Amino acid sequence: MLDRFLIDKYVLSALEEDIGFGDITTDNLATEEDVLEAKLNTRSDGIVCGLKVFERVFKNLSDDVEIKFYFKDGDKIKAGDTIAELKGSASAILKGERTALNFAQRMSGIATETRKYQDAIGEDLKARISDTRKTTPNFRVFEKYAVYVGGACIHRFNLADCAMIKDNHIKLAGSLTKAVEKIRKNISHTHKIEVECDTLDQVKEAVACGADIIMLDNMSCGTMKKAVEIIAGKAITEASGNVNLSTVHAIAEVGVDIISSSAIVAKAPTLDLALDM
Amino acid sequence: MLDRFLIDKYVLSALEEDIGFGDITTDNLATEEDVLEAKLNTRSDGIVCGLKVFERVFKNLSDDVEIKFYFKDGDKIKAGDTIAELKGSASAILKGERTALNFAQRMSGIATETRKYQDAIGEDLKARISDTRKTTPNFRVFEKYAVYVGGACIHRFNLADCAMIKDNHIKLAGSLTKAVEKIRKNISHTHKIEVECDTLDQVKEAVACGADIIMLDNMSCGTMKKAVEIIAGKAITEASGNVNLSTVHAIAEVGVDIISSSAIVAKAPTLDLALDM
Amino acid sequence: MLDRFLIDKYVLSALEEDIGFGDITTDNLATEEDVLEAKLNTRSDGIVCGLKVFERVFKNLSDDVEIKFYFKDGDKIKAGDTIAELKGSASAILKGERTALNFAQRMSGIATETRKYQDAIGEDLKARISDTRKTTPNFRVFEKYAVYVGGACIHRFNLADCAMIKDNHIKLAGSLTKAVEKIRKNISHTHKIEVECDTLDQVKEAVACGADIIMLDNMSCGTMKKAVEIIAGKAITEASGNVNLSTVHAIAEVGVDIISSSAIVAKAPTLDLALDM
Amino acid sequence: MLDRFLIDKYVLSALEEDIGFGDITTDNLATEEDVLEAKLNTRSDGIVCGLKVFERVFKNLSDDVEIKFYFKDGDKIKAGDTIAELKGSASAILKGERTALNFAQRMSGIATETRKYQDAIGEDLKARISDTRKTTPNFRVFEKYAVYVGGACIHRFNLADCAMIKDNHIKLAGSLTKAVEKIRKNISHTHKIEVECDTLDQVKEAVACGADIIMLDNMSCGTMKKAVEIIAGKAITEASGNVNLSTVHAIAEVGVDIISSSAIVAKAPTLDLALDM
Amino acid sequence: MLDRFLIDKYVLSALEEDIGFGDITTDNLATEEDVLEAKLNTRSDGIVCGLKVFERVFKNLSDDVEIKFYFKDGDKIKAGDTIAELKGSASAILKGERTALNFAQRMSGIATETRKYQDAIGEDLKARISDTRKTTPNFRVFEKYAVYVGGACIHRFNLADCAMIKDNHIKLAGSLTKAVEKIRKNISHTHKIEVECDTLDQVKEAVACGADIIMLDNMSCGTMKKAVEIIAGKAITEASGNVNLSTVHAIAEVGVDIISSSAIVAKAPTLDLALDM
Amino acid sequence: MLDRFLIDKYVLSALEEDIGFGDITTDNLATEEDVLEAKLNTRSDGIVCGLKVFERVFKNLSDDVEIKFYFKDGDKIKAGDTIAELKGSASAILKGERTALNFAQRMSGIATETRKYQDAIGEDLKARISDTRKTTPNFRVFEKYAVYVGGACIHRFNLADCAMIKDNHIKLAGSLTKAVEKIRKNISHTHKIEVECDTLDQVKEAVACGADIIMLDNMSCGTMKKAVEIIAGKAITEASGNVNLSTVHAIAEVGVDIISSSAIVAKAPTLDLALDM
Repeated sequence: MLDRFLIDKYVLSALEEDIGFGDITTDNLATEEDVLEAKLNTRSDGIVCGLKVFERVFKNLSDDVEIKFYFKDGDKIKAGDTIAELKGSASAILKGERTALNFAQRMSGIATETRKYQDAIGEDLKARISDTRKTTPNFRVFEKYAVYVGGACIHRFNLADCAMIKDNHIKLAGSLTKAVEKIRKNISHTHKIEVECDTLDQVKEAVACGADIIMLDNMSCGTMKKAVEIIAGKAITEASGNVNLSTVHAIAEVGVDIISSSAIVAKAPTLDLALDM
Repeated sequence: MLDRFLIDKYVLSALEEDIGFGDITTDNLATEEDVLEAKLNTRSDGIVCGLKVFERVFKNLSDDVEIKFYFKDGDKIKAGDTIAELKGSASAILKGERTALNFAQRMSGIATETRKYQDAIGEDLKARISDTRKTTPNFRVFEKYAVYVGGACIHRFNLADCAMIKDNHIKLAGSLTKAVEKIRKNISHTHKIEVECDTLDQVKEAVACGADIIMLDNMSCGTMKKAVEIIAGKAITEASGNVNLSTVHAIAEVGVDIISSSAIVAKAPTLDLALDM
Repeated sequence: MLDRFLIDKYVLSALEEDIGFGDITTDNLATEEDVLEAKLNTRSDGIVCGLKVFERVFKNLSDDVEIKFYFKDGDKIKAGDTIAELKGSASAILKGERTALNFAQRMSGIATETRKYQDAIGEDLKARISDTRKTTPNFRVFEKYAVYVGGACIHRFNLADCAMIKDNHIKLAGSLTKAVEKIRKNISHTHKIEVECDTLDQVKEAVACGADIIMLDNMSCGTMKKAVEIIAGKAITEASGNVNLSTVHAIAEVGVDIISSSAIVAKAPTLDLALDM
Repeated sequence: MLDRFLIDKYVLSALEEDIGFGDITTDNLATEEDVLEAKLNTRSDGIVCGLKVFERVFKNLSDDVEIKFYFKDGDKIKAGDTIAELKGSASAILKGERTALNFAQRMSGIATETRKYQDAIGEDLKARISDTRKTTPNFRVFEKYAVYVGGACIHRFNLADCAMIKDNHIKLAGSLTKAVEKIRKNISHTHKIEVECDTLDQVKEAVACGADIIMLDNMSCGTMKKAVEIIAGKAITEASGNVNLSTVHAIAEVGVDIISSSAIVAKAPTLDLALDM
Repeated sequence: MLDRFLIDKYVLSALEEDIGFGDITTDNLATEEDVLEAKLNTRSDGIVCGLKVFERVFKNLSDDVEIKFYFKDGDKIKAGDTIAELKGSASAILKGERTALNFAQRMSGIATETRKYQDAIGEDLKARISDTRKTTPNFRVFEKYAVYVGGACIHRFNLADCAMIKDNHIKLAGSLTKAVEKIRKNISHTHKIEVECDTLDQVKEAVACGADIIMLDNMSCGTMKKAVEIIAGKAITEASGNVNLSTVHAIAEVGVDIISSSAIVAKAPTLDLALDM
Repeated sequence: MLDRFLIDKYVLSALEEDIGFGDITTDNLATEEDVLEAKLNTRSDGIVCGLKVFERVFKNLSDDVEIKFYFKDGDKIKAGDTIAELKGSASAILKGERTALNFAQRMSGIATETRKYQDAIGEDLKARISDTRKTTPNFRVFEKYAVYVGGACIHRFNLADCAMIKDNHIKLAGSLTKAVEKIRKNISHTHKIEVECDTLDQVKEAVACGADIIMLDNMSCGTMKKAVEIIAGKAITEASGNVNLSTVHAIAEVGVDIISSSAIVAKAPTLDLALDM
């Protein structure tokens, strides 16, 4: 994930956003010969993420920045750890600092939050935390990647790679079953169909018409437990709604496969990383 | 701010991100004739922001979506309020929903958080809350705009529109004074110079060499008070470090003009908006 | 599929490719007042496809071209049929003609070829023709859409929306089973896993480890029949290799769900459409 | 032709098209250390084309892929020949395979088809096969280049680099002569004027007004012969219409300079190349 | 020339260049309801050019700007003339003013300068002034168009649409004749070959090998006169070097067809246009 | 200023503009093995500018061009000086020549003109020459950079980084003071406010309401002198209007800080540089 060509597309526009016509402070103080050494340190515990993106920020500014990494994406880091050492063009390091950190702090923040949810579920339960499409516009690849690095089972990337039937789709089709059938006939056999269910009756109908994934939307744990029994392994079960760090374990205990929540992305605080020179 | 041509640049790539080759659910269920009515409602109190962006999402999908707004950017909204009513192409409304909300929820969340900080400062103190460059890559225009709508005094847009001299720049130049002088000689007369000061001695030096803005970085309130006295109106004063909702009023009381914090962007929760159909 | 914003992205670069600095013939002969009427006629029988793209070519050149369509994508057309009538700016019609036809001819050609394969399978067999990733670079959305309009079950869009395990992946993982397990643990629960099998032993292993789709690669019909029996509905079956119009019915008779072939795209002749003025 | 900066523009968007957010199969199985060796072999006889594009696909994915070529664009290759050997990052080779082949197979197919037409004309006749603007949108540079490599005399690149007067232009101008004169007065002296003629009278008129190139459109060989005599070297002669492998030699025998046909691009089957690992 | 889709591509990036995150003056003073009337007046005599581009600047900012033109591209304007009247959104008019004028002033300046050269040649001589590739990077389409509007015979657009053999090419090929022959064999029959000649011997060789255009480079008028006699209508003759308003008539008198000069673009002063509100 | 990522963005589109599908002369004469040596010489005296851009043109064409510079941006060069030596791929050098020169000639021309103005002011006066927003669309970064290299105090980059209140803004706000106050309340504390004044009364009002910069627009030297006295160091003073090489010294003598003129960009002749091979 996150091939170099994709990273560079976003990094280049981020550099244009933050530097524009030029860094009027650094450009007027640093010569091409000035060099710096810097350490990427963490001020908080967490899961590090985005190191390749961090690196590409500097590489796109100059060939004269060497970076040595002591951790890799997904590793646990503790406050005080040195994640990487940079050496090279003072100009490039000073100019790239903020953009590189903006990527890494957000990505590490999301990976860290995701891991907390997965840890709260615990290893004895099969449930996996998952994300949603509630992401920052034009930043989704990085958020999805961070969720993956954090240990989640990532959800569909966008509207094109998995069908998800909601209330309004059911109204348009006439019934849940008709919606599933019409979509199954038209989409790729490589794509799945997920159905959002609010009631056990809908769950039964979804199972009957062969939905691949059944989302139990905003149900109580008791109702979800019954739903899981009804589904009985004939579809992947996904819990959604009211998911937070204090509820996620109890939800996992009802036996669902997936617990999806926008919180791991939308509410993840950035991780406090710093470039100390 | 946020002219249509700029909004569309970001909206088009966000639509490509979220829709890609096509919404395989909606495309297979909604015909071109299907119409929908929907309401943009808020589930939380806050400051609404991003309505023009919200609108452009749908307009870029179809000419057949009419939107009537009951609020405008910067207005207070209360849980339960209907912000806008949409009517038109079911296909466009269903496809655009998530992207439109992703913009509006983040922007409203930031505007709301910003307003809280400004309100915590209160009307009797002159201090204005401000933001930083700790933003989401490729999303800064929307975050800055939301900060503005929330009532903050926005900070520099990027490295090109205001000089900001930090520790490492001082090292490169030899001294704070040399850094200021070298930069003043080289930058536009339309641009200002801000100096980040850690000590009162630095503050004195910054005043002496005519810095336009003096940032009091991570100082105690007591020290900041002395700094404000030293500066005595000869420069704009900006407090930075340890700013949160419980400290911001006390910081404002030391008499600074500006209190800058990344929290109003990086830690702002999204505002809970929904499209009810 | 093919939302307007996506079509326009490709149409605009196609217009730049074909017109560039200007149509030096038309620009020097047609005034802004000159109008034309033209008919989009077909010289061959087939399935029409790409009409929305055809329309966007002219709309991106001028607001003064009206187009009335007598057919819609997927309809059968016979040599001599008038598909659409255009009226308006002579300049726009003459300049857009070739680009509009280049889209529609290729898309209709592919839809037509696809329909032939599906018709050769016949209605009594469940098999659906499908495509592959052997497409024209930067033109895939149109080829995939044409395959869909032609009646095929489209295959995965790209490397990101369905896992497909081939020989080299198996070598990297150590075994087919290990590959499936490692991928299942890491990909989205909304994505499927397809395994390319060359032998019945591989088929058995793929079934055992729960592959969602099993590709029977370059097998004889006899072997495929056995494979289908082994799989027994536990996975979607996909035949691949040596698929052409004379073999496709026999392959379908072995009972597979999907028959994938690059021929419906790569070998489809363009359909002979013309703009008669 | 096809400078690196131009190739990369198309290769990067093709990689984004085929890989998107990531190759979920390879990304989860190949580590950064895994290496592969692979051979680019041909399963058919033909003319190889697109090797530089093939190479740029991998170079844009990774610095760790070395490619050794045994043939160069335009060389004859026979089924079983190894065109190139690749060594390096397994991840990059597996991810780039399909995109690299999609370019090379189409380009080699077109070069091969072009060469067949030129060979069918034979060396004793001066006629050169040429192409048209019936190309795949956003892929023309590669198709034109393949036509060139195949030995054709390429036609104008687009509407901007040569005037071509057709029926409708003549109507707009009032007469063929008026069209030629008006255009000659307005276009660059570095550009030529081609006139499409349906009758010998038009041919005479075109000669009289000094057309640079006269296209004999859909004429019988007998009529074309007379046209060539009328033109008598005063313009380049170009035959068009009903050109295929069985007619092209006879057409060449009428003495035309150029025989243009969309078939060498639009009907060229892809050449069967494969990456064997 | 200059189709809307092409203009918009450049206008949108020019607006982003000049407005960026927002016009902080106008955005804070003008409401959406404020309207303005403005006149595009000229302070100098000249040839007006770029009116369509001027219009697109405002149309890309707002739907609420109406423009009425009293002149069209190529018309003579006199100091004091009102070229157009604008009415509508004050915000859009104030924001677009500078960008719209930057286009129109440069384009009108070039058209005006071009016309002066053509007028200096006079109507009794056949020579046409022409331009070169010495243009402003990323602004050539507008400069070429202005040259065309000014009455010049435009030169080749770029390196791709006409061959031009210079000293170094001759060295690479071995001789002028070899260079012409090699290129003629390889380029499109729709493209011409121009040869840059420094001596009469080169002129003779260029004629002998059938060059389409012969550039007489930096020759005295006397030598050029002999060259024109030698060429005797067998090629288009183009004078180059030392062309200015005082020499151009004398150069034209030697009987050349074309006189090319970078001065009409590179040295053209902008025309003094203003938006009076 | 002018970071590599920014230069490359413009250089790549300039190369596409000038080379397009390919240099049909060089591509058919130079092999990949042909090498060349060339010197970048100047035919005129001036200030050299744009060398990094010059270099990036060739680097984006080929890895096989080495360039050795004998001068750096801002250095004085005299007719006959060799600025740089190039060695490497003949193809890349011949193809890149024109584009590289087009950048360097314009940038050097502007730097040279700027220096003339600054020299005309002389070292005994504090005034600095400055530019305006009258630049070439999509080329401003290079023009601004050249102005900077020429020794000017650059003006605001665009409408976003400094407020500039003109007549129409004052009308919209009701008064100059209201305009300043409204803007000060809304813009960043890092941004300045400039007010364009036509009369001494306006100057007084601008001083009173605390404008950061006061532009004395089209005033006589006598009036400007009075204005400078009124302002008395409370704001930066900027003279504008009727600035040319013969007036600039006299204007400087009135005691202003800045003299802004579009002439240093819009009227700067290109500097005569050449690549001699």
